[in-house]
Amino acid sequence: MITPEPTIFESLESEVRGYCRSWPALFATAKGSWLHDEDGKDYLDFFAGAGALNYGHNNDVLKKPLLEYIANDGVTHGLDMSTPAKRELLETLRDTVFKPRGLDYKVQFPGPTGANAVEAALKLARKVTGRETIVSFTNAFHGMTLGALSVTGNSMKRAGAGVPLVHAAHMPYDGYFDGTTTDFQWMEKVLDDTSSGFDRPAAVIVETVQGEGGVNVARVEWLRQLAEVCKAREILLIVDDVQMGCGRTGPFFSFEIADIKPDIVTLSKSISGYGMPMALVLLKPELDVWSPGEHNGTFRGNNPAFITATAALRHYWSDDELQKSTLIKGQKIERALSEVAGHFTGVSVRGRGLVQGIAFDDPSQASKVCQAAFEHRMLLETSGSTDEVVKLLPPLTITEQELDQGLHILTNAVDSVCGGIGVVA
Amino acid sequence: MITPEPTIFESLESEVRGYCRSWPALFATAKGSWLHDEDGKDYLDFFAGAGALNYGHNNDVLKKPLLEYIANDGVTHGLDMSTPAKRELLETLRDTVFKPRGLDYKVQFPGPTGANAVEAALKLARKVTGRETIVSFTNAFHGMTLGALSVTGNSMKRAGAGVPLVHAAHMPYDGYFDGTTTDFQWMEKVLDDTSSGFDRPAAVIVETVQGEGGVNVARVEWLRQLAEVCKAREILLIVDDVQMGCGRTGPFFSFEIADIKPDIVTLSKSISGYGMPMALVLLKPELDVWSPGEHNGTFRGNNPAFITATAALRHYWSDDELQKSTLIKGQKIERALSEVAGHFTGVSVRGRGLVQGIAFDDPSQASKVCQAAFEHRMLLETSGSTDEVVKLLPPLTITEQELDQGLHILTNAVDSVCGGIGVVA
Amino acid sequence: MITPEPTIFESLESEVRGYCRSWPALFATAKGSWLHDEDGKDYLDFFAGAGALNYGHNNDVLKKPLLEYIANDGVTHGLDMSTPAKRELLETLRDTVFKPRGLDYKVQFPGPTGANAVEAALKLARKVTGRETIVSFTNAFHGMTLGALSVTGNSMKRAGAGVPLVHAAHMPYDGYFDGTTTDFQWMEKVLDDTSSGFDRPAAVIVETVQGEGGVNVARVEWLRQLAEVCKAREILLIVDDVQMGCGRTGPFFSFEIADIKPDIVTLSKSISGYGMPMALVLLKPELDVWSPGEHNGTFRGNNPAFITATAALRHYWSDDELQKSTLIKGQKIERALSEVAGHFTGVSVRGRGLVQGIAFDDPSQASKVCQAAFEHRMLLETSGSTDEVVKLLPPLTITEQELDQGLHILTNAVDSVCGGIGVVA
Amino acid sequence: MITPEPTIFESLESEVRGYCRSWPALFATAKGSWLHDEDGKDYLDFFAGAGALNYGHNNDVLKKPLLEYIANDGVTHGLDMSTPAKRELLETLRDTVFKPRGLDYKVQFPGPTGANAVEAALKLARKVTGRETIVSFTNAFHGMTLGALSVTGNSMKRAGAGVPLVHAAHMPYDGYFDGTTTDFQWMEKVLDDTSSGFDRPAAVIVETVQGEGGVNVARVEWLRQLAEVCKAREILLIVDDVQMGCGRTGPFFSFEIADIKPDIVTLSKSISGYGMPMALVLLKPELDVWSPGEHNGTFRGNNPAFITATAALRHYWSDDELQKSTLIKGQKIERALSEVAGHFTGVSVRGRGLVQGIAFDDPSQASKVCQAAFEHRMLLETSGSTDEVVKLLPPLTITEQELDQGLHILTNAVDSVCGGIGVVA
Repeated sequence: MITPEPTIFESLESEVRGYCRSWPALFATAKGSWLHDEDGKDYLDFFAGAGALNYGHNNDVLKKPLLEYIANDGVTHGLDMSTPAKRELLETLRDTVFKPRGLDYKVQFPGPTGANAVEAALKLARKVTGRETIVSFTNAFHGMTLGALSVTGNSMKRAGAGVPLVHAAHMPYDGYFDGTTTDFQWMEKVLDDTSSGFDRPAAVIVETVQGEGGVNVARVEWLRQLAEVCKAREILLIVDDVQMGCGRTGPFFSFEIADIKPDIVTLSKSISGYGMPMALVLLKPELDVWSPGEHNGTFRGNNPAFITATAALRHYWSDDELQKSTLIKGQKIERALSEVAGHFTGVSVRGRGLVQGIAFDDPSQASKVCQAAFEHRMLLETSGSTDEVVKLLPPLTITEQELDQGLHILTNAVDSVCGGIGVVA
Repeated sequence: MITPEPTIFESLESEVRGYCRSWPALFATAKGSWLHDEDGKDYLDFFAGAGALNYGHNNDVLKKPLLEYIANDGVTHGLDMSTPAKRELLETLRDTVFKPRGLDYKVQFPGPTGANAVEAALKLARKVTGRETIVSFTNAFHGMTLGALSVTGNSMKRAGAGVPLVHAAHMPYDGYFDGTTTDFQWMEKVLDDTSSGFDRPAAVIVETVQGEGGVNVARVEWLRQLAEVCKAREILLIVDDVQMGCGRTGPFFSFEIADIKPDIVTLSKSISGYGMPMALVLLKPELDVWSPGEHNGTFRGNNPAFITATAALRHYWSDDELQKSTLIKGQKIERALSEVAGHFTGVSVRGRGLVQGIAFDDPSQASKVCQAAFEHRMLLETSGSTDEVVKLLPPLTITEQELDQGLHILTNAVDSVCGGIGVVA
Repeated sequence: MITPEPTIFESLESEVRGYCRSWPALFATAKGSWLHDEDGKDYLDFFAGAGALNYGHNNDVLKKPLLEYIANDGVTHGLDMSTPAKRELLETLRDTVFKPRGLDYKVQFPGPTGANAVEAALKLARKVTGRETIVSFTNAFHGMTLGALSVTGNSMKRAGAGVPLVHAAHMPYDGYFDGTTTDFQWMEKVLDDTSSGFDRPAAVIVETVQGEGGVNVARVEWLRQLAEVCKAREILLIVDDVQMGCGRTGPFFSFEIADIKPDIVTLSKSISGYGMPMALVLLKPELDVWSPGEHNGTFRGNNPAFITATAALRHYWSDDELQKSTLIKGQKIERALSEVAGHFTGVSVRGRGLVQGIAFDDPSQASKVCQAAFEHRMLLETSGSTDEVVKLLPPLTITEQELDQGLHILTNAVDSVCGGIGVVA
Repeated sequence: MITPEPTIFESLESEVRGYCRSWPALFATAKGSWLHDEDGKDYLDFFAGAGALNYGHNNDVLKKPLLEYIANDGVTHGLDMSTPAKRELLETLRDTVFKPRGLDYKVQFPGPTGANAVEAALKLARKVTGRETIVSFTNAFHGMTLGALSVTGNSMKRAGAGVPLVHAAHMPYDGYFDGTTTDFQWMEKVLDDTSSGFDRPAAVIVETVQGEGGVNVARVEWLRQLAEVCKAREILLIVDDVQMGCGRTGPFFSFEIADIKPDIVTLSKSISGYGMPMALVLLKPELDVWSPGEHNGTFRGNNPAFITATAALRHYWSDDELQKSTLIKGQKIERALSEVAGHFTGVSVRGRGLVQGIAFDDPSQASKVCQAAFEHRMLLETSGSTDEVVKLLPPLTITEQELDQGLHILTNAVDSVCGGIGVVA
């Protein structure tokens, strides 16, 4: 039934490869919510490039200007030289994203990955404040380079560093104690206690929803209070919106719901819209103390990605249609999942917008559900510290019908996995 | 004369931007060795995307399959899923690059930047050996993320980290003492002296020619001895071929000239061939101790870049034509530069293949030369710890005529800058 | 009234000097609970060398064998050579301290200070486990050398390091949240959550009562649970008994009350009994993986201190008289302090045995009380993160009369400081 | 023949013990240059407490005031309170040591060990400069606490830390390349090269003769140039005179010979004169930026040691008799050792004043010589990175006869060890 893994990957590619083990197919083409393998089989994608494909695979809205740009020999590799493609992106960011939201960020092109953006953000926070420690949260994920890894929680990934990861202080994320403690009790106490052993931090870095960490959703009031905790102590607030930004939770920025204005924002994944490597750091103007070239990188001027990014912003963010539909689709998923979860004990649902998760008290059920879904040609991944959560990250552009189809496969998978052992009645 | 910098970059882009300050033009399109600005002016590119454009801008050999791939909705964003595009790249690497050179590396896709490759290489070296220190060299440049920055020399860039950069030991690069000391005298002594204070390193990371460091060229015998120094002490040898690989110095790998086989090789910049973000780590099979997913990254499967990479390898590396022409062109540059340098005191020439440099005892002359060249619409950059070296990185595909034209502009620029003050006779 | 500070201290001694500023007298001789200045004035000592003088100043029980030893030219400086003085100390430790308590510790002489003992303990814990992180607690104090400082809480002292203090994780001490959270809720959660960002620690280091931290008393059940938390996770438990050991809280070891057996114990301060520099590390036999000389130090064989240590153990610890009287005296202090505290709001009492504290909601009152006491020739110090606690550390050998006298001065001082502002009725 | 090691040490003392393994005797009393074991056997001490007993064991000049002080109940444990004993020490330091040498140091009492002094010196250098790196030298030894260990060379001792030792840069000590390179070639180059990867250091810490490192003697011109290298770059110069100070090399400070004035000096070992734990940091007045209590320690006021220190300074340093005799005795040793070394190949001699060493190309010979000497009841230790040097550290007060006796035993030991294998003719 399953396509055997082609030999060249087994023989020549490093053992570090991961997703190709969960999804043993040879994916040749892709469109919208679908991947197609070499044998012509179709797979419904509820992973969307780990959040890098909010507008689906090879979206024609973006593909057309991309092909034109390449065909016309627009600058491809531009370092940080000025180009019309970059100019248009900056103008579009300003007019479509910043102005309507009352934001006046400056824009840094830190290199093409989320980790580049996080590394640059941490550098800047340290430079501005003259302090070293960064506060991050339990179950956080911010990247795999040494600086980003220091503020990441996962012990397996941390161990990969091969050196101690320091200059970070990890605090409890919202809900870490299931509401049994007051919000920020620990964090405020150690920040204000000069003998707590916690050195005054440069910044706090936070995801509003922790995707890799298990679809942990921070409440609006928690985010708002976090912003206040930071502001009162002159600690910079960095929102890592690499996965949750670009509309994943509904609004363009995931933090809009809390009506806060972070000092620094990192964007990547879906910012180019087409799955092309690109990242941004947004920073308050008063923080722009960089010296020219103090942070750089060969691929920070991936101009084809600027073209698709501009097209995506113009098409999807000139009005609030996408935001609305994301929220409606999210509610639909939540309803469907809650219903199936209600049939079993030890199964619960959480999420915001189009990032949703089903958590299993028995972590092994989560991977069984993903495996069952794959057998029905649907791509789903687990997340969370024990891989206990099935994470749904469908394209925001998914159709009603595709969504229904996916939910059908998924709820059946949950039923089949939990059916024999957890039925309530 | 110079195009004024467009307002949006000044007002909205971070102060960290660099090249756009040296080259105040708005570059719209590009082809081969040329960039063209919005006003229709042409610029001869002797920088080639800091070495990311060895095959020139928007090379039609690569552009054609790229457009086809995109048009046909080939998978764009593939994480580390198996795709035909990746399969072909792996096969081509094996058949075109590894087999003819007797290499049996395994291939890791560490994320799309050179820094991703360096971070992954350092992690792996530390995991394999259980040691922490990495030996790097004076004036080395390996990237801007925290791990890569630790092994980088430049103090301005290092200071940007905002935290102490540790777990690295810096050794003198070839020629650091102008031949007044025995090669590896310091390094061998401290490695073998158990009371030197130097902890046993996991690996040595080296560039065979230091591009950013000032076009410092390691001699063949120095590289060979370095490999022996490492082997004798069970220290891994990492060649960072991000800038010098893919034919920049003549052969595909810059280390081939020394007939050594590094334990780990990092590739990026020109490996995609088209300026698209992509990077590889090559590792000896016995070092492939990665756990699945122990290092990952959203953009490690930039499939369009696999397409262009495959096309570039097939077209340019199935025979030794490119290698030969690179060496011939390099000699031509060397002759021309040596001649003009001979007219002045305090000016010298160095390089290998198509990375060449003119070093000035008075560092201010180097930037003046670049500025003068830009006024004649030629792009050149300085490098070296005091920016004392004009670095030439033309596309390997540059024509004879373009090369002559560039050398004409450059030698005139040197003449005009040095003329009034350093003429010998 | 106050003796003016002699010029030579002001002119020649570093600004780092501290106690001589609080107590501007020139102390010439000392006996029991008293210090005497050059002008013949007597000062009642409720600080006892910060806990180094549990048996009082120049105790004749110890002084006699000390004088004899020196007069007879016993080895003074013995490195770690075997001497009869060391033999007797080891035998006395075994027979008087270990055997009656069912302990089988091995004994390390790590150098003469508490910080030496802590540094050695941390080294050993890291060596045994192969891990790096040490868990310590909010408001902990373990010493001023770099390793000990890393596990210390005080931000002023930490900042003195001049380098980031790493490899430590700080956890809430008992009572940190005034009982509003479950014991070890945070600690157990982050230790067991593989994505918390907390690396698996080598050891936990704890004071059973935090002296410098503000006379914070860990409950017996908290200590017991801490031991279980560690044991269940194969984390070593280090009790730093430098200040609270040697009978300060009643029993010889402060942890006896909880019926736990730490893996490693550090002792210093009163272990020599006479205020002479000496320290010990006690370690479970299975942890004794030291290589010869792997930790050393010039003054680890301070044999005169071994003589007084032996005499102190024999005289004071062959029966339970001292322990009993310490507890009785402690209760007397507690009663007296509680009574005076009851007269005011914002004043509270805490302690165990002969370490007792009066905490003031208004921290300035604590130093005013100490100053008022000094004006009546009584030595007292503040502690706590905001110096909000008056700490009582009288010699364990203090007489009833001296204790009454001290309590009289102290309660009057509290009355005079709090009287005008905090009287209840 | 050899006293069997008493059981209690084997059974109860940690495996970390070292010297008692080399010298398996039970040393009961000591006087001058002699140790006496319980069986009445006498041992000639050419180790002198690792340099802590420059005035011999239990010197009556110091013993008398010590006994009086203790008998009269002088303050024993004084923290950093002002006492007449400290006042006299400060006055004596000023009048006997500082004034005649034109020095105006301020004096810090950092705790009783050399490592305390080194840790305080490093803290201060970092605080004053705001930099983190400390330059130390190959084969340096500065102590076993974490900060001191970072600047120590020995790999076995470094590994004991259990965490990476960072913030230190190790440079070649004088003679490291046997004169084949220019002095400070490496150090000056990397300090001045902004791309060397070496961060600007706070301070350089140096021993003028490396005792533990193998009796490596820095030439006067090297020390002088080192001082200039530091001064020109605003890097603080710390001379660690813990072992070489207090007259070991002839003058009171070992650096006097080079006519340099270090910014910071650490003293310990023989500063108390009697083997009692005590240490000092001397610092230029403009560096005295300590806050009160920023560095502290329980045993920094070991007043009996102040008494013996004062007596030693007054008796031995009011004139230049001791300095003269030290140099004469040193020359005598050098002559005798050179003669015996001349009989063999692979044996050489080095030293300054009364620290002298015999180095063996075959390291095993050094320990054999020490063992042979011990069989003739003479205490000698090896040093150097491979324990290849027999180190002579006799008391400065050794008599002519004792010196002759020691040299007789030693030269015989060398003869017997080297005789069969290395005789020249």
